[in-house]
Amino acid sequence: MLNFNIHVPTRIRFGRGKIADLGEEILNYGDKVLLVYGGGSIKRSGLYDQVLQIFQDNGIDHVELSGVQPNPKISSVRQGAALCKEHDVQLVLAVGGGSTIDCAKIIAAGARYDGDAWDFFTCKARISDALPVGTVLTLAATGSEMNPNAVINNDDTEQKLGTGSPLLYPRFSILDPEYSFTVSPEQTAAGTVDIMSHIFEQYFSPTPGTLVQNRLAEAMLKTCIHYGPIALAQPDNYEARANLMWTSSLALNGILGAGKRTDWATHDIEHEISALYDVTHGLGLAILIPYWMHYVLDEQTAPRLAEYARNVWEIDESEDIAAARAGIRKTAEFFKSMNLAGSLSEIGVEAERLAEMAEKATSQGPLGAFRKLEYQDVLNILQAAYDGNIFDALKNA
Amino acid sequence: MLNFNIHVPTRIRFGRGKIADLGEEILNYGDKVLLVYGGGSIKRSGLYDQVLQIFQDNGIDHVELSGVQPNPKISSVRQGAALCKEHDVQLVLAVGGGSTIDCAKIIAAGARYDGDAWDFFTCKARISDALPVGTVLTLAATGSEMNPNAVINNDDTEQKLGTGSPLLYPRFSILDPEYSFTVSPEQTAAGTVDIMSHIFEQYFSPTPGTLVQNRLAEAMLKTCIHYGPIALAQPDNYEARANLMWTSSLALNGILGAGKRTDWATHDIEHEISALYDVTHGLGLAILIPYWMHYVLDEQTAPRLAEYARNVWEIDESEDIAAARAGIRKTAEFFKSMNLAGSLSEIGVEAERLAEMAEKATSQGPLGAFRKLEYQDVLNILQAAYDGNIFDALKNA
Repeated sequence: MLNFNIHVPTRIRFGRGKIADLGEEILNYGDKVLLVYGGGSIKRSGLYDQVLQIFQDNGIDHVELSGVQPNPKISSVRQGAALCKEHDVQLVLAVGGGSTIDCAKIIAAGARYDGDAWDFFTCKARISDALPVGTVLTLAATGSEMNPNAVINNDDTEQKLGTGSPLLYPRFSILDPEYSFTVSPEQTAAGTVDIMSHIFEQYFSPTPGTLVQNRLAEAMLKTCIHYGPIALAQPDNYEARANLMWTSSLALNGILGAGKRTDWATHDIEHEISALYDVTHGLGLAILIPYWMHYVLDEQTAPRLAEYARNVWEIDESEDIAAARAGIRKTAEFFKSMNLAGSLSEIGVEAERLAEMAEKATSQGPLGAFRKLEYQDVLNILQAAYDGNIFDALKNA
Repeated sequence: MLNFNIHVPTRIRFGRGKIADLGEEILNYGDKVLLVYGGGSIKRSGLYDQVLQIFQDNGIDHVELSGVQPNPKISSVRQGAALCKEHDVQLVLAVGGGSTIDCAKIIAAGARYDGDAWDFFTCKARISDALPVGTVLTLAATGSEMNPNAVINNDDTEQKLGTGSPLLYPRFSILDPEYSFTVSPEQTAAGTVDIMSHIFEQYFSPTPGTLVQNRLAEAMLKTCIHYGPIALAQPDNYEARANLMWTSSLALNGILGAGKRTDWATHDIEHEISALYDVTHGLGLAILIPYWMHYVLDEQTAPRLAEYARNVWEIDESEDIAAARAGIRKTAEFFKSMNLAGSLSEIGVEAERLAEMAEKATSQGPLGAFRKLEYQDVLNILQAAYDGNIFDALKNA
C-alpha cells in the first residue's frame, strides 16, 4: 500500500425528500445563487419548480445558466463564470447529472479567475480560488457530486480534458434516488457502466498489498451488476436507484484509489472519442472496457484479472488466464445485456480517425499504470473496439 | 435503505513517515497544544521524542497529560480540561490508541464548557463547542481517529458511557502503520476483533435494501480475517498493519451504517463488563459476539446470518439456519485461533454480578435493532458467555 492523504469534505444528504434541506444548505454560503442545469428534464419532472420555490421561501436570489450539454462545453463555463462575476453570485448550484456538476465546478473556479477558464485545463493556470458549489443529483454515474474533479469539452480545439482541485469538492450534495426514476434506459445503462469503469480504473493497479481497497471495489462492482438490470427493468425501483446512486458517489470519492497507483487509460481513450463525437461517456466506456481488459491480459496481469473474475463473477476456474478470459466475457455479456452497443463502428465512429485519437491520447506520454499503453497499443485497442469481435477473440485464444 | 446524512471532515494522512506533516497540521489551529498520551509505550518506541522535536522545530508550545488508561477515566478528562483552560490550549493532540483519542475528544469539549465533562454523558449538557482535536494513531481498533464519538469510564458511578458530536471529529489523523508494529499480540488480536465488532454492529440490521453497505461490510470483515493472524505472527508486517489500520478507520467512519438501523447491543453489554472490570474492550467483545449471534439466531434473522456465513466464510450450505450456525462456529474458531479467551469466567468476571450488568445495560430500555434484547435476553447472553460452551451449543442444536 502506498502512502496517501484523503479528505472528503462534502456533506451528503441522501434520500427521499432531502431537497427540503436545500435552503438551509445554500444559506450557509449566501443568498445569491447561479442555478446551473441542462435541458428540460428538470422542468418536466417538476424539480425546477421545486428548487425555485425553495429559493423564494428562503429569500434566495438567483440567476440561471441552462442548456448545459452532456460532455459539457467550455463555452457554457465561460457564460456561467461571466454571470457569476456580473451578479456577485455566492454559490453555484448544479441541478442535474455529472456534466452539469462538472460545468458548475469550473464556473465556480472561473468566477474567481481573471483569465479564461480553459487555462485550468492547459496548465496555463492553477485553480487557486473558487466559489462554493452545491449539487442536487439526478443521475447516478460520474461521482462528481462527491469529488474535486471536472471534465470539459472544447469544441474549438477538439479536446476533452480534466482538471481538479480540493477547492472544487461540492460543499453539499443532495442525493434523492427518486430524481433518477425518470432517467432513460440508455442513460441508466451508461451510468451503471460509468460507475463500474471508475471502480475498474482504481481496482486494476500494479500496487501490491491493497486488499481492503480491492475487496471494497468488488463490493461496489457486485452492487452495480445486481442493480443495473433491475433499474433498467423497473425504473422506479427505489432500492435499485438508491444503491446505484450511493455507489456512484463512493466509487469515486477517493476511498477506492487511496494507497494505490490507479490506471485511467480507458478513460483517457474514451475522452478522445467523445471529444470528436457526441457519445455518452458511459457508452464509450462500455465498448472500450472489454477490449482494454483483453488487450492488457498477459502472464503478469492475469492474476489480478483472474481475481476479478473469481470474486466478482464467481468464476470457478483455477488457471489464471482462463479465469481472466471468462471474467472478460462476463463483463462484455453484462454490458450487452443492458442493450449497450458493442463496437465503435456501431455508434458512428469513423475508422479513419482512430489513429488521430490514439495520437492525441498518448501525446503526453504512455497511458495507464496497470499496464503502460503506447500509441500502437491504444490504436490496437481502438481498432479492436471498432471491429467489435470480443466474443470471437475470447473464443479463439 | 433509510435516508441519511454523512459528512466526514477528518483529514487522513496515511503511511510511513507521515508524522512529518504533524507540525503543519497543528499550526493550522494554533501553537499551544495539550499532548495527551497513555503509558510509556510512545516513550519506548521513540514516538514521544519525535513529537517533541516537531513541536520544537515548529515553535509549538505544549503541556502534557499522560497516564490515560485503557477504558479512559473521567478523572483524566477533568485533569486535561483544566490544563486546557489554565494554559489557553488551542489544540488537543492525542498520541496513542482509541482510549487516548476518546479522552482527548472529551477534554476538548470540556475545555469549552463551564461545568463538569461528565454532564455530556448524563444528558445534563450537550456538546456545543470544543477545541480542535488531532490524532497520531498507534493502534488499529476503535476507529476513533475518524469519527465523532467517545466512550469514557466513571469509576465513582461504575458507568462506561458514550457520547458524540460533529464537533469531535478529529481535524486530522496521522496513521502510520509502523507505529502499530510494537502492539502486543493480545492487543493486536483484541484490536482486530474490535474492528470486526464495529462492522457486525452495522452489518446486522433490520433495514432492507442496503446491498452496497452489506457488501462493503463483508469486504472489511474479510480484510480483518485475512490480516489479523498475519499481524499476530509477523508484528512488523507492514501490509497487514496497513490494511488493519485503514480498515479500523473505514469501519466506523459512518459509511457502513449510513442508511441503516444499526444494532450496538453487543457493545452496550460489553460496556457493562468493562465498567466493572478492567477488561480490554476487544477481548470482552470477542467473548460476547458468538453468544450474541447464537442467541439472536431464529427463523427471522437466519437469512442475514446465513448471508454472513456464505459471503464472509464461504460456507456452502443452502439451509439458512445451518449456514448461520456454521458461520457462528467459524467466528468463534477465528477468535480462539487468535488466543482470545472464550468465556467471561476465564477473565475474572463474577457470576453473581451478571444480573447487575444486564440490569444496567437495559436500564434505558431494550438493546439492539437486529433483534431487540430485554433484561432477560441480556442476562441469558451473559450467562452463556460466562459458561463459554459455544461449540457444544452449536453442536447440540
